[in-house]
Amino acid sequence: MDSSTSSERMELKKIARKEGVSPSAIERGLRNGSIVAIGDCGVGAGLRTKTNANLGCSEGFSSLKKEMEKAEIAVKYGADALMDLSVVDVGLRAKLRKFGVPLGTVPVYDTFAKREPDADDFFSAVEKHCKDVDFVTVHCGITKRTSAMARKRLIGVVSRGGALTALWMARTGKENPFYAEFDYLLEILKDNGVALSLGDALRPGALADADDAAQEAELRINGALVKRARKAGVAVFVEGPGHMPLNTIAHHVKHMKKVCGNAPYYVLGPLVTDLGAGHDHITAAIGGAIAGAAGADFLCYVTPSEHLSFPDKEDVREGVVAARIAAHAADIAKGVPGARLQDDRLSKARARLDWKTQFALSFDTDACVRYRRSRPPACGNVCSMCGEYCAVKAFRESRKGAGK
Amino acid sequence: MDSSTSSERMELKKIARKEGVSPSAIERGLRNGSIVAIGDCGVGAGLRTKTNANLGCSEGFSSLKKEMEKAEIAVKYGADALMDLSVVDVGLRAKLRKFGVPLGTVPVYDTFAKREPDADDFFSAVEKHCKDVDFVTVHCGITKRTSAMARKRLIGVVSRGGALTALWMARTGKENPFYAEFDYLLEILKDNGVALSLGDALRPGALADADDAAQEAELRINGALVKRARKAGVAVFVEGPGHMPLNTIAHHVKHMKKVCGNAPYYVLGPLVTDLGAGHDHITAAIGGAIAGAAGADFLCYVTPSEHLSFPDKEDVREGVVAARIAAHAADIAKGVPGARLQDDRLSKARARLDWKTQFALSFDTDACVRYRRSRPPACGNVCSMCGEYCAVKAFRESRKGAGK
Repeated sequence: MDSSTSSERMELKKIARKEGVSPSAIERGLRNGSIVAIGDCGVGAGLRTKTNANLGCSEGFSSLKKEMEKAEIAVKYGADALMDLSVVDVGLRAKLRKFGVPLGTVPVYDTFAKREPDADDFFSAVEKHCKDVDFVTVHCGITKRTSAMARKRLIGVVSRGGALTALWMARTGKENPFYAEFDYLLEILKDNGVALSLGDALRPGALADADDAAQEAELRINGALVKRARKAGVAVFVEGPGHMPLNTIAHHVKHMKKVCGNAPYYVLGPLVTDLGAGHDHITAAIGGAIAGAAGADFLCYVTPSEHLSFPDKEDVREGVVAARIAAHAADIAKGVPGARLQDDRLSKARARLDWKTQFALSFDTDACVRYRRSRPPACGNVCSMCGEYCAVKAFRESRKGAGK
Repeated sequence: MDSSTSSERMELKKIARKEGVSPSAIERGLRNGSIVAIGDCGVGAGLRTKTNANLGCSEGFSSLKKEMEKAEIAVKYGADALMDLSVVDVGLRAKLRKFGVPLGTVPVYDTFAKREPDADDFFSAVEKHCKDVDFVTVHCGITKRTSAMARKRLIGVVSRGGALTALWMARTGKENPFYAEFDYLLEILKDNGVALSLGDALRPGALADADDAAQEAELRINGALVKRARKAGVAVFVEGPGHMPLNTIAHHVKHMKKVCGNAPYYVLGPLVTDLGAGHDHITAAIGGAIAGAAGADFLCYVTPSEHLSFPDKEDVREGVVAARIAAHAADIAKGVPGARLQDDRLSKARARLDWKTQFALSFDTDACVRYRRSRPPACGNVCSMCGEYCAVKAFRESRKGAGK
């Protein structure tokens, strides 16, 4: 740690304390790239699985106030990070800093706000965003070659930044600037101390497209770029799918870790069926929990409005809670130290019918209180599901009956 | 098939047609017990994973009308079976027959409606229910010995019927009548042609209690009772947990199948964390999908009001959709023939921005329509999430740009 500054050492200790692991474990992870620090949040091997909530203004939905309210809800319900995916710039990302959580953006959306952007517009957008953020998603792995591979797919490219880059390449005949001049991108990020999240422009948008040649080709490009980013001293992690059959997820995560030198994996889903619109926070929670248990480190939430419409506050709440359930289930499965302590505390409270403590320890205390108030038990300290037939109550009595 | 009646042969053909498998595969499964027919619904190995919705009146919540509305919603959203868990008898179960789906109950709740029931009251309740139902859940595996094992647990017994049976044993000093006189139970079921669902009174109600001695002891008893039921000509399946860490579920399902001679497995969850109250349909969908992929055959829904209160119509809808997502994800994973066809059809519609077909093929068409109507796109045939930045639209244009 000779070359590290004292502020770096402070940050390292802070991360270690929050994660309940030793500073040397964090330092080792940061050195070998299996852990990345975004702000004072550690993401990677051996650490608690993190969750991200996407926000941002779209055409016709560009209220700064509403997005700030959504951010407040996301943070209240435990999102570890926020991404501002605005395609209409109302100054949201600078405002989001007030929440004190790591912030990411996808700068290339700004590039495509211009009618005929050139290659420089790709980099100037990144440079501009770097002033406000901890990490940026950049779609480097979609190239002339790999985007052509996606033409064979059932649903092609479903990443916004990826599809717009493919369209730009088709129109200009030029290579993706982020791929062609990757070293220039690294320079900008290095100068600004911003982490690189290698986007998965070619994530499958349908089960039928999962694990195809395009996805694999992009993953291999991203794996090679991870090495170059590390060499350049840029913290790097990799984004992942998408829609994938449940039985392929665990293997895929292990494969990605191998191809990408154990870089942290940031997944959107995976969604385990294409039929879940209106409930895709659930479809994604299933895949996210399995991915997390297999080693994915960072889960991007999916809201119930995915595939349908711009999300509202309620969608954000549902999305964050679902992602936290998935991340926590994964942490218990992969043995993150202390992951189950809160479950045990809650279940002890449940065993003594202590509702207040149960609710306080649940992911969504407000929902618990709302349910109980709206349909209280007819009598007694039970819940209205079983009333006096409450199993917990009956078993407590049977213990007494047995003299225990 | 010499000894089978012509109505049995008709039923067999009907099941085979619905499942898209050969009648001989169904017949083989029925013979070796890996498939059970409840009504004209096949449950078991090689078949589509089924879902069940629980209904029923409780103290202070005993509106026949409301329960019938909930049943209608459950069937509309695709529940394959219904269980009436009423502890207040308002004549619901006979009425539920009109929905034409398999119906189950837990007769022992009636037993405990009496102040001081004796052993005969256990069997008379079963006999009474047999007139109306296709299957009954009976908690045979909770005995003096196994219920004592549960006293070491964090939260003891969380099954209503199980806890009440434990209390009865503690008060009377007698053995569980369903265990002590199992052959008598089989006689009743055989005479009425009703299938036996062996309850898991000792399912873990907390992650801390999962895979403990009590759960294993009950499972082994149930495994032995499966053999006796089959010998007596009673169709039998087995119920399973409960709360379990994600990484233990797949192994547990395979273990159960081994111990229970490949009897169909009917699981409640498993819930992969104890912290999800208000969202336990999600917690259960994660575990249910993994269990189903590993071989579980029948998923009992869990609603968002689980652990909190009596469910309402909206809870039923959420619970059924979550269970169907889990079951379908499992079917794709375990390779049920044709499971992915609907996903592919939907994704093709998504690729051509055909919203109507997408919505029609989704599990919750109403939710899709509601989302789209409440927040329509500012312009164009896209959705309001990305507006004109729609990836699907951009990639279609890039294909044209590339002359494809």
